[in-house]
Amino acid sequence: MAKFENVSIAKAANIFYEGNITSRSIEFQDGSRKTLGIMLPGEYELNTINKEIIDIQTGQLEVMLPAEDWMEVSAPASFEVPANSKFKLRVKKLVDYCCTFVK
Amino acid sequence: MAKFENVSIAKAANIFYEGNITSRSIEFQDGSRKTLGIMLPGEYELNTINKEIIDIQTGQLEVMLPAEDWMEVSAPASFEVPANSKFKLRVKKLVDYCCTFVK
Repeated sequence: MAKFENVSIAKAANIFYEGNITSRSIEFQDGSRKTLGIMLPGEYELNTINKEIIDIQTGQLEVMLPAEDWMEVSAPASFEVPANSKFKLRVKKLVDYCCTFVK
Repeated sequence: MAKFENVSIAKAANIFYEGNITSRSIEFQDGSRKTLGIMLPGEYELNTINKEIIDIQTGQLEVMLPAEDWMEVSAPASFEVPANSKFKLRVKKLVDYCCTFVK
């Protein structure tokens, strides 16, 4: 099974939308950070601070990035979200994702 | 924030009960293993292979261990589940847990 090696992981989960979105924060030895998370079916609006690359490992959703139309995303796929922005999600089938924060 | 250091983490989540229970598998350099997971409110029955020590980091639930009565558990707390057994859970408030597999 594919793994990230030599990382630290926060014991406490990140919890949003009453647990419909949860993630675990991991940090690599070079200081770079990712989260591994789950999104249950539902509609959500999220904010970014850093630019994010979101890798949809399993599942199906629609995404509306800033100033764009809704787009359908089915795993395996990835999309980028600009820094300091809002984006909307309609999760259709449970999503297992990996988010990379880009500085 | 408290962390586990120098671990590997599987990219793919463990998913049970349609995503109401999800976890991430981590492995330490000595080969020992834990999962960090989320349980949403609901009733569940789970099986063990190894003996498990389940640390309830946040949340509230009731647990019925083999041949025991229901007991109430509120974070922070932990309980042990014998190897090769079944146990039942009634999660009342979202649980963020850490499970240690004991060989």
